[in-house]
Amino acid sequence: MKDFEMELLGLLEEGPKSVWELLDSVHFLTRDFIDSLNRLYEKGLVESENGKVILTCKGRLALGEKPLNVKTKLCECEGRCIAVDGEFKRILEKYKKAIKAKPKEKAEYLQGFVKEEDMISRVAMMDYYGDVAGKEIALIGDWDLGITLGLTDLPAKILVLDIDERLGEFIRKVNEENGLQIGFMKYDVSDPLPKKLVGKFDVFSTQPLESSTALKAFLSRGVSLLKEDGVGYFGLSTSEVPLKRWLEVERMMVGMNCAVTDLMRDFITYKSLQDDEDEKVIAKNLSFKTEPNPGIDWYKSSLFRFQIIGKPNPLVKWDEKTDVESLSEEDLLNPKF
Amino acid sequence: MKDFEMELLGLLEEGPKSVWELLDSVHFLTRDFIDSLNRLYEKGLVESENGKVILTCKGRLALGEKPLNVKTKLCECEGRCIAVDGEFKRILEKYKKAIKAKPKEKAEYLQGFVKEEDMISRVAMMDYYGDVAGKEIALIGDWDLGITLGLTDLPAKILVLDIDERLGEFIRKVNEENGLQIGFMKYDVSDPLPKKLVGKFDVFSTQPLESSTALKAFLSRGVSLLKEDGVGYFGLSTSEVPLKRWLEVERMMVGMNCAVTDLMRDFITYKSLQDDEDEKVIAKNLSFKTEPNPGIDWYKSSLFRFQIIGKPNPLVKWDEKTDVESLSEEDLLNPKF
Repeated sequence: MKDFEMELLGLLEEGPKSVWELLDSVHFLTRDFIDSLNRLYEKGLVESENGKVILTCKGRLALGEKPLNVKTKLCECEGRCIAVDGEFKRILEKYKKAIKAKPKEKAEYLQGFVKEEDMISRVAMMDYYGDVAGKEIALIGDWDLGITLGLTDLPAKILVLDIDERLGEFIRKVNEENGLQIGFMKYDVSDPLPKKLVGKFDVFSTQPLESSTALKAFLSRGVSLLKEDGVGYFGLSTSEVPLKRWLEVERMMVGMNCAVTDLMRDFITYKSLQDDEDEKVIAKNLSFKTEPNPGIDWYKSSLFRFQIIGKPNPLVKWDEKTDVESLSEEDLLNPKF
Repeated sequence: MKDFEMELLGLLEEGPKSVWELLDSVHFLTRDFIDSLNRLYEKGLVESENGKVILTCKGRLALGEKPLNVKTKLCECEGRCIAVDGEFKRILEKYKKAIKAKPKEKAEYLQGFVKEEDMISRVAMMDYYGDVAGKEIALIGDWDLGITLGLTDLPAKILVLDIDERLGEFIRKVNEENGLQIGFMKYDVSDPLPKKLVGKFDVFSTQPLESSTALKAFLSRGVSLLKEDGVGYFGLSTSEVPLKRWLEVERMMVGMNCAVTDLMRDFITYKSLQDDEDEKVIAKNLSFKTEPNPGIDWYKSSLFRFQIIGKPNPLVKWDEKTDVESLSEEDLLNPKF
């Protein structure tokens, strides 16, 4: 039996779990998750009961006597390692208030929404590494990180670049209400960068689209924005990005003279949105009936921190235009859909 | 002023700290640490008092009004993310007992000794990723991880390869006393691998020497030992390895088709040994007098986890001999010594 199937059986040995709870626990492609779960169901090793997946007697036997991967748990910080203290808790409250009127996520831009608590952990972690106070910070997308950073009053400058103009309007309002000076510029990563921004920032962050062309464009633009020895952050998921493409991304990083200094698994959790289209696709492709997600935030992104060694060397030069596919066929949650 | 100096001033703003406490908090080269601290002392920004470094009035002024990087703390798990539960605590006690009679560290092999608690966190973390139960595991050096893994009774096979024959004798004793079957083979990474071991393991781990030639040899041997899609772990420090060499290591990884899946900062703590030669060198090179280290474990190693995408492709082929410098001139704690 495949490792993925054994891992799922191991998780079910702890007790019945919904599809969404299982998804929340695994670290492999969602398409492999669906295939593995369907195979277990078809072999009669699991069953579906009251919206939960349960182990059958046959499934229990298949586990064998080998003790499985069920004893190790994450620390209460959920793998984020950072203790978020009093002051950051106050910023969390300010942030929640500030984003109440945020524009609704747009499917055409594949926008997701990061859990508010995780935004604070991200800023605390960046601060721990000295990448916040007094720094000039550029963000491509990642407007919510821009607002959180702004609310700390620590950075010297914050500029949000985003394709979605509605965010510019929204940030202007947040600035007004909170006495901030977060900059905004409408920008599409397939376009050349404005020359005046090239090589001007200490720190960069983005949550890129995850196709190969998009990753190359987002990361190249980020590197172009940075000064010598600048620092960058970006997220990558295991749910939609095969490890083969992780390797491709890491090949891009070394090609751009970027040393990865940290790679924090599942650091960023996206909020499960009501009427999520991906979740409907997952449910449709399972061999058994499942209940809608009651609100388990299973979609996560691992966070890379990198530092440029010497001069920035972007794969796509700042004044070059480049093609960006938002989703290529292989990027779909499941190629059979 | 340089970032490193500002970071040190920020740490001292919290209160007086010994040189060893400061070393414990920073993430840059020890040689840069010494240089920065000496510069601060020579500029009159810090002083030495009762074996502690303190901020002078001038130092306080240099900090300016900008709030510094002093609010963010690590979670109680100290960045290890893993909750070590009851069963692992029992293994910790067994491990402490098992290694009581371990051979003393040999300077010629640059052997260090990892904190016992960290060995358990490492095993728990490997277990969390499904890299322990039922797996065939090879270790180059890293004999202490081998014993800890053995005590869990989870792996299918464990083989320790080490240049130090005394460890073979010691492991045989541990096996006898604990009913284990950990294998041992005397092996020097500069030599070709025995053919029968090539491509035979699911998981590999090592704490390599940190010169460029050593890193290339240790990691190539590790990759050669692995099956298709095998998983490896290794440590790298920021104290002795410049980020430029981190980039070199990451270039090696992508060249060997290895995708880094996790890079956990400071996961492994080495125990501060009495009469440590490095610490004497550090003390000698400071511009002011300092007390010996009372036992602060400041030397840490960041942990990489990688997965081979497809077939192993080691830079040094398994049947090739290679030169390994244990320490090249640039590797010394400080080139001026």
